[in-house]
Amino acid sequence: MVLPTPGINVQGGGVDVWSLINGAAAEASKSSGKPVTNLGQGFFSYAPPEFASEALKEALPVAAYNQYAPTKGRPELLNAVAKSYSPLFKRELDPNSELVITAGANEGMFSAFFAFLNQGDEVIVFEPFFDQYVPDIQMAGGKVVYVPIHPPKDAETRTSSANNWYIDFDELSNAITPKTKMIVLNTPHNPIGKVLTVEELSKIGELAVKHNIVILSDEVYDRLFYSSEFPRIATLSPEIWDLTLTVGSAGKSFSATGWRVGWVIGPAPLIHYVAKANTRIVFSTNTPCQIAVAKSLAIADETGYFQENINNFENKIKILTAAFDKLGLPYSIPEGGYFVLVNFSKVKIPEDFEFDELIQQKPRDFKLAIWLIKALGVVAIPPTEFTTPKTAPLLENWLRFAVCKDDSILEEAAEKLQGLKQYIQ
Amino acid sequence: MVLPTPGINVQGGGVDVWSLINGAAAEASKSSGKPVTNLGQGFFSYAPPEFASEALKEALPVAAYNQYAPTKGRPELLNAVAKSYSPLFKRELDPNSELVITAGANEGMFSAFFAFLNQGDEVIVFEPFFDQYVPDIQMAGGKVVYVPIHPPKDAETRTSSANNWYIDFDELSNAITPKTKMIVLNTPHNPIGKVLTVEELSKIGELAVKHNIVILSDEVYDRLFYSSEFPRIATLSPEIWDLTLTVGSAGKSFSATGWRVGWVIGPAPLIHYVAKANTRIVFSTNTPCQIAVAKSLAIADETGYFQENINNFENKIKILTAAFDKLGLPYSIPEGGYFVLVNFSKVKIPEDFEFDELIQQKPRDFKLAIWLIKALGVVAIPPTEFTTPKTAPLLENWLRFAVCKDDSILEEAAEKLQGLKQYIQ
Repeated sequence: MVLPTPGINVQGGGVDVWSLINGAAAEASKSSGKPVTNLGQGFFSYAPPEFASEALKEALPVAAYNQYAPTKGRPELLNAVAKSYSPLFKRELDPNSELVITAGANEGMFSAFFAFLNQGDEVIVFEPFFDQYVPDIQMAGGKVVYVPIHPPKDAETRTSSANNWYIDFDELSNAITPKTKMIVLNTPHNPIGKVLTVEELSKIGELAVKHNIVILSDEVYDRLFYSSEFPRIATLSPEIWDLTLTVGSAGKSFSATGWRVGWVIGPAPLIHYVAKANTRIVFSTNTPCQIAVAKSLAIADETGYFQENINNFENKIKILTAAFDKLGLPYSIPEGGYFVLVNFSKVKIPEDFEFDELIQQKPRDFKLAIWLIKALGVVAIPPTEFTTPKTAPLLENWLRFAVCKDDSILEEAAEKLQGLKQYIQ
Repeated sequence: MVLPTPGINVQGGGVDVWSLINGAAAEASKSSGKPVTNLGQGFFSYAPPEFASEALKEALPVAAYNQYAPTKGRPELLNAVAKSYSPLFKRELDPNSELVITAGANEGMFSAFFAFLNQGDEVIVFEPFFDQYVPDIQMAGGKVVYVPIHPPKDAETRTSSANNWYIDFDELSNAITPKTKMIVLNTPHNPIGKVLTVEELSKIGELAVKHNIVILSDEVYDRLFYSSEFPRIATLSPEIWDLTLTVGSAGKSFSATGWRVGWVIGPAPLIHYVAKANTRIVFSTNTPCQIAVAKSLAIADETGYFQENINNFENKIKILTAAFDKLGLPYSIPEGGYFVLVNFSKVKIPEDFEFDELIQQKPRDFKLAIWLIKALGVVAIPPTEFTTPKTAPLLENWLRFAVCKDDSILEEAAEKLQGLKQYIQ
């Protein structure tokens, strides 16, 4: 038999970073007999808050809470999202037309791309990017146009705010063509930890309005910001609101990345098409988890859960970054999200350390990541996986550490990382 | 602002049958002050079995059971599906390469289309079809080619097995072109209730092997068959196995359509691409429900749950069909699934009954459905929604009744339906 040709968008592609790093971690753990400390993938090492689990348990005896939800979402969750987000969006969100519940934020973005892209349409994506954006855009027939976010000039020598990473607005303007249909933002940013400022968002918004470009703002870390405010592009003007789809995530907000509940918020004329695409793609989203998230949002707002969670994360970041302060390795202080980007320019990998062929061909951050796993037993993610080769040099001396882990895991990592001392020049 | 042009596959399309029928039902219930009896959409009126809910509750305290599952599925569920289905597939299914867990069967099919379709590829779909197939194929760039399943010649006058509906194999052969890439089967069939026989499946399989066509077999009702056996096309020969993707559904198997857990089973070289597409579309599937389904499959096999459920459904079908026997309205006796197609040729809608403009333009089954809701308070689905206009005449005298409802609801419907007597000629 000749294998039927696969679809063009699932062909090719090498080993992805998750398989590669998780594979190396498993191997290192096996050969050393000691468990590795995993600050790699951005999942929580702990369960969701008890009020969320309890809400899920309470949903189960109700027949309808186990059956298809309406394709746009259960009314309980639509109402809860509208209630929780209306103050944040500085407008009364209509739960029936300005919202759609999706099977995770990822599927929400996938639906948004299918809602607006036609063959050959261009989509501007900032680098580094969340790795799913690119194939998702391509599957919808779109072409990705990349614009880098640059590290501050002194990033190799000095720790400073992640907000010092910057967009070159000439580069952004030049990337816009008559075919530009959408622009993807991510704030708080993974992996940089940057929160786009009102000034930056205004400039982006003005360009979008001028060229009639749909803004897809991935704000899945919106409940985790350490700056004094979290500006949302959708709130900056009525004209910008009319073009903006904002993506949110219950998994990120409630330490439940496996629940796969997300949402897209935006003006009714745009949400109409996102909802249509979503219906075709998954039909509807897990019902019992929708009910649990509805209740959890209300409880979180009543009890100040999100602020409490921010406080916990500030402490987690402190545990990890203290280790790098001690070592004198500079990093970007995150303004939001749960990743810390650390600059490893000063770290010298021993010359006799052997990499397999696949890693030899990769940028230096992959070598750093593999070596860190094998030599120190700490797992981090090489961020050039989230760039094109052209932009890789900007990121090849950095590693991404996830802090959405129990404090004890972070303390263990902090201790192991002191082993870097002898490799720092 | 000019609304940015939506993607070609989410444009257009009128009111879908679900909105239309549910809207009419809500209106009828409001204006009459009496609740309607809903045998429309195929969701269960009751909760999943207690062992399934318990398994879900037990999963919640485990941190990892609330976080991202591996994109191909939790090992617990992959192993459970392989164990439960290996005897049914008459081969040892490899949980690591011959399976992928999806966010419901619908998303499994969507992934399968994206895995193999390129722009302009043709997909053969039998009519009547599950309504999601068509837009899903189009979103993946495919073109649908329709082949009708014909009712038996005496269907208007005589009740007989749903298996008397038949495929004209000349029509099927003629539909195959060099561009034919996939063929979609549905057995047990929604809405007909037909279980494709070994003979029919062999002929389809031979054609697929001859023309190297991927077979996508939607077997979501596989645990509900009333015939003595349920043949699976994937088991008929090694050559057919090599080309077959079989889709299953935990929601249908465990009365939990809102859990959104499904799977695709097939040879490793095909599953590889389905898994890749699935990763891009949803990344991963709801984790706690995966764990609950894993345990439920084991319990179901141990306790004979599926046979018990079949017995319950045979009784449900009896409650409903007794009403039509009394009325002398012929129907197709389902061999599988939870729908009964009833022939309403003999039923005369009063001439003074007024339909709104939208319904006036539709085939007679839409008029029958709306009238049945308003006059008798019983909701059924018009099956021409699941055909092209060309094939609509074959189905326009039928209505689809769902029996996945509490016995009391079916009894209530049976009683209300006796009101048809005065309209039967």
